[in-house]
Amino acid sequence: MPNYLLITILSGLLLAKSYAQPLISTTSPNQSINLVIRNTSEGNISYQVSYKGKAVIEPAGLGFILSKPQVSLSRFTIIAADSSTVDENWQPVWGETNRIRNQYKELVLTLQDKSASNIRLRIRFRVFNDGLGFRYEFPEQTTLTHFIVADELTQFVLAADHKTFWMPGDYDSNEYLYNTTKLSEIDAVAAADREKDTALKSVIGPDAVQTPLLFKTDNNLYISIYEAALVNYPVMHLRVDKSKRILTVQLVPDAVGNKAYLQTPTQTPWRTIIVSDQATDLLASKLILNLNEPSKIGDASWIKPQKFIGMWWEMHIGKATWEKAGGKHGANTRNVMKYIDFAAKYGFDGVLVEGWNVGWEDWFGNWKEDVFDFVTPYPDYNLDSLTSYARQKGVRIIMHHETSGSVTNYERRMDAAYQFMVKKGINTVKTGYVGRIIPRGEHHDGQWMINHYQRVAEKTAEYKIMLDSHESAHPTGLHRTYPNWMASEAARGSEFNNAPTLGITPEHTTILPFTRLLGGPMDFTPGLFRFRLNQFDSTRTQRVRTTLAKQLALYVTLYSPLQMVADLPENYEKHLDAFQFIRDVPVDWDDTKVVAAEPGDYVLIARKAKGSSSWFAGAITDENSRDLSLSLSFLELGNIYEATIYRDAANTDWQTNPETYLIEKKTVTSKTTLSLHLAKGGGCAIQFVKR
Amino acid sequence: MPNYLLITILSGLLLAKSYAQPLISTTSPNQSINLVIRNTSEGNISYQVSYKGKAVIEPAGLGFILSKPQVSLSRFTIIAADSSTVDENWQPVWGETNRIRNQYKELVLTLQDKSASNIRLRIRFRVFNDGLGFRYEFPEQTTLTHFIVADELTQFVLAADHKTFWMPGDYDSNEYLYNTTKLSEIDAVAAADREKDTALKSVIGPDAVQTPLLFKTDNNLYISIYEAALVNYPVMHLRVDKSKRILTVQLVPDAVGNKAYLQTPTQTPWRTIIVSDQATDLLASKLILNLNEPSKIGDASWIKPQKFIGMWWEMHIGKATWEKAGGKHGANTRNVMKYIDFAAKYGFDGVLVEGWNVGWEDWFGNWKEDVFDFVTPYPDYNLDSLTSYARQKGVRIIMHHETSGSVTNYERRMDAAYQFMVKKGINTVKTGYVGRIIPRGEHHDGQWMINHYQRVAEKTAEYKIMLDSHESAHPTGLHRTYPNWMASEAARGSEFNNAPTLGITPEHTTILPFTRLLGGPMDFTPGLFRFRLNQFDSTRTQRVRTTLAKQLALYVTLYSPLQMVADLPENYEKHLDAFQFIRDVPVDWDDTKVVAAEPGDYVLIARKAKGSSSWFAGAITDENSRDLSLSLSFLELGNIYEATIYRDAANTDWQTNPETYLIEKKTVTSKTTLSLHLAKGGGCAIQFVKR
Repeated sequence: MPNYLLITILSGLLLAKSYAQPLISTTSPNQSINLVIRNTSEGNISYQVSYKGKAVIEPAGLGFILSKPQVSLSRFTIIAADSSTVDENWQPVWGETNRIRNQYKELVLTLQDKSASNIRLRIRFRVFNDGLGFRYEFPEQTTLTHFIVADELTQFVLAADHKTFWMPGDYDSNEYLYNTTKLSEIDAVAAADREKDTALKSVIGPDAVQTPLLFKTDNNLYISIYEAALVNYPVMHLRVDKSKRILTVQLVPDAVGNKAYLQTPTQTPWRTIIVSDQATDLLASKLILNLNEPSKIGDASWIKPQKFIGMWWEMHIGKATWEKAGGKHGANTRNVMKYIDFAAKYGFDGVLVEGWNVGWEDWFGNWKEDVFDFVTPYPDYNLDSLTSYARQKGVRIIMHHETSGSVTNYERRMDAAYQFMVKKGINTVKTGYVGRIIPRGEHHDGQWMINHYQRVAEKTAEYKIMLDSHESAHPTGLHRTYPNWMASEAARGSEFNNAPTLGITPEHTTILPFTRLLGGPMDFTPGLFRFRLNQFDSTRTQRVRTTLAKQLALYVTLYSPLQMVADLPENYEKHLDAFQFIRDVPVDWDDTKVVAAEPGDYVLIARKAKGSSSWFAGAITDENSRDLSLSLSFLELGNIYEATIYRDAANTDWQTNPETYLIEKKTVTSKTTLSLHLAKGGGCAIQFVKR
Repeated sequence: MPNYLLITILSGLLLAKSYAQPLISTTSPNQSINLVIRNTSEGNISYQVSYKGKAVIEPAGLGFILSKPQVSLSRFTIIAADSSTVDENWQPVWGETNRIRNQYKELVLTLQDKSASNIRLRIRFRVFNDGLGFRYEFPEQTTLTHFIVADELTQFVLAADHKTFWMPGDYDSNEYLYNTTKLSEIDAVAAADREKDTALKSVIGPDAVQTPLLFKTDNNLYISIYEAALVNYPVMHLRVDKSKRILTVQLVPDAVGNKAYLQTPTQTPWRTIIVSDQATDLLASKLILNLNEPSKIGDASWIKPQKFIGMWWEMHIGKATWEKAGGKHGANTRNVMKYIDFAAKYGFDGVLVEGWNVGWEDWFGNWKEDVFDFVTPYPDYNLDSLTSYARQKGVRIIMHHETSGSVTNYERRMDAAYQFMVKKGINTVKTGYVGRIIPRGEHHDGQWMINHYQRVAEKTAEYKIMLDSHESAHPTGLHRTYPNWMASEAARGSEFNNAPTLGITPEHTTILPFTRLLGGPMDFTPGLFRFRLNQFDSTRTQRVRTTLAKQLALYVTLYSPLQMVADLPENYEKHLDAFQFIRDVPVDWDDTKVVAAEPGDYVLIARKAKGSSSWFAGAITDENSRDLSLSLSFLELGNIYEATIYRDAANTDWQTNPETYLIEKKTVTSKTTLSLHLAKGGGCAIQFVKR
């Protein structure tokens, strides 16, 4: 319930003369964040952000260039400034905590274009204790109905040449490693050129980077620039003016170079700045979720967090193939039955089956429109007998819809494909968008595709289907609104362990929580237990760059309500003691404590299992070994817990000895502090069960 | 059943040395057409066509440029030359005749690219008595699977600077008037600039023209260059080298500039040349139909030629509106009921209703994706009560699906829209594609849209729905293959009578049968009985440029199995005696005789009603008055017929006195010759009923 409050107007706002610089400012509820708005005599609006007195964003511009009508919306008269506060709590359908506080002060500026267009718009700022978001709103008005965005002029001006965690700006791929350099040292083209394993790259230019973009300042601030509620609008990339430290929004163009087609009333996604002097606070931020709309799904009881295994990794490492031709077809009835048996035996919810449907002989790289029909199994895959077999065993098949980028084909067939799933009793789908998009000229990150992903979320919800999207655009908290859209890939996931060139570096998983994961759960597919990937092809040099204990810890540090158990059954059966952690670890939580974290170095998180007194902790490190301290103060006071600790041994090392681990049991209380030793590329996973 | 025969190989084909010019030639079954193939020492293949010894096509090039793989397919070795003959008859589901002879000699050249690509292709020539068609075929081969056509190099080289009937080449519109100039005088941009009434133009350039392209030579040949069976390929426009008289194929590009995405085995549409020394033979040609595949619809008994009226013209002339807003909504229950009453009273099959569904307030010009949903009537339109009312009266509502060019939206909703129709008992749909296409960057005439139109034809056939497509690409005889695709617009139709600038010139309908109609039936919407279009808005100066008798004659001269009766009921009720001809004229025929014709001047056609002894004749002229002689030798010998003649009076004139007509009855036999007087812009329509 917003209630109006006084905002600070430092100089005469509505009476402003052309020489005046009206200032409007507001703060976060706890005063740590300060937002200042200025308007020059020419009408140039800027915003400025500080955190506990330290500069976060120096005065930075706002506005648009429209191509229809042709007008530059960059000089404004401020018509009104309204403010309000909100403090509420809400409960997610699933997540890292069972209750989220949404507390902010809101400032809404109503602006009128100073040129002859007479266009009015609003900028809505919401200032939280851990950052702020703002968006542009175009109300219904006679002077503007349909319009086309040629460019968004939003800027983020940094106070210094910060340490920056970035990946190359790309219209079609977000499956890069992160680079860590000074802002002034960004060279996105050079970074992209080092990436040899990405099938499709549409690199924007040497100065363009993706969001979320993370900074660590010399005065120990952690700053993330991102977006929330990306709806009916292209992805926000950023162009970097390295000398002036100005980041300007670079929207993804469509086939003819336009950015967005909008109709009033409408609004942009939120542009977000999360800031803290504690890295752990940034990881715990709920700002992105809070800026999204509440769930549109009334009865969400059918949405169930899941752990699943799959007919998948064995294709990556050369044991089997997606396609039937060639004699190594993985998704045959007998093989999948074995997976169902394994899932049933060890208590997993689902079995993903890729390569089940006709079309894989000719699916990739040809920009071909009619590849898959999503309803025709290969003849050696008896879907009906398998779904029935799975049902008897309490396991469900997970459907796979690889579109091969041909989205027009998928859209034509979506209804039939989901009806087919419902008929077969399958209620989770993994979608894929590998390759160049059709409609040709559109990009994975453009407005047209953003609308497509949302359409899939909405349509799967209609059919009560849970969704896991791969090769889709970066998530921006829309899983609050569509809780059936449980996970997406949208980053370099574990499959890149199998990539010949760069693979997954040890630090990668220590950066993801500070960047990609701020937007939503990732189907990273952890749980690899075999580290040399030459199991079925002795010539392969690809390898996993972690220890086994780190693979376990990832189930805690990389949150997802759809968590894959990615390795082959035969590889798990060699380490059933360690495998026990994967069996036990939940995918839904009542509470989360980010204990310690530093981007690029380490992450230590503890979480309380949903509806249970048990806690779990996961610690991971980069290429350096490390000792972390874990105070168990989160445990219930006065109770005794048994901790089962899965850890690296003294001689464990991701390069030389990744598979060695120790499992220890300890009795602990909330007063205990554990010292965790992480090997190079290592980790530690702990289960705490109340006695 | 093709049987192999000897072809003339004038010089050593397979032993050809580099200095040799191997010649292969073949002729039409009746020897009138001669085709000669040459191959230079460099591998440049050319074809040459003559008719009764007169040059039609001088040696002209063949080939392709592919962008993937990057190869120029322009120099070939001839690997084989095979020939055969066909002489068969087939029966169309509906049409101008009930039996069509398909007689040709076929020559198939197997070619191998002389460059390193090793690509093989075939060129298949079919030489009929009235012209020829050839197409390129890419067989399955290891050296070519998926490929992208950057350009097709097919040329047509003319023997002289012929009189040419042309319209500007345009990727999105074929709704132009024809221009008649020497080939050397073509200026497509200037012609397009004169056209002020076309909402969307994508003019290719000053030297580009559309097909079908018609020539009349100084030595009295009529030549048409066109294409047949346009499937999975863009429309063929032509670029004109005026000095060298070379026409080169200009394919329509997609959003990224490519022309066609193909996969072996595949083939191009047929490139066709129809030629005759009799204009009437050109009009009677079945070459385009014969080059299309037989019907894919097994049981076609549900496909019924129809005459229909519609809630349509009153929107054009300002009595009503498509949109509900504004208070003049045409498609309200009461109005449509009146149309149903009128159709029932006068014996028409259908009532087209445009503006029935929500969305028209905001449908045009904004490149908006989600406009119509095709299932939501305006609240003042009670579809259920109307379909039931119509059913009682023996009339059917005709559905209207205006896509506003947003084809992605339509494709998403097609199944639901057709299911809705089936549920409502509606089995004919008029589709529309007004405005710029979405996927943005695609064109009405591009490969993606060609595939869409075919998809609509196939899907409507699945639902047993008859199809009439507007703003679609030029038809190429596919109504043989999909006889439910009964008509399309794809040219400037009668609605342009209401256009302020150029309108429909008197000659336009004398050119259409020689050009656009060669490809298939047109929903021209004849039958206007009121010529000043200021009925509901006294300021309007638009007018119809014909006499009333010519409007009647158009029902015979412009063949379509879906023929609209376009004017308002109140305008027909003022001329019920003349209206009787429209009530009587059939839309399906056993036989057709093109009695006299000259493009741009006049057309006189007689047709025998399907399953009846009655004949009908229609004669039209351009802006000149004219007397035509009609020998009735087609009537059954020895029988007496009553001829009802609807004709211009002596003082009728399209400009000064269009509404005056005479109706005469005469007794005639097959020995009678009638002399028909046509006023300026006039016509004559006759019904012959056996006594």
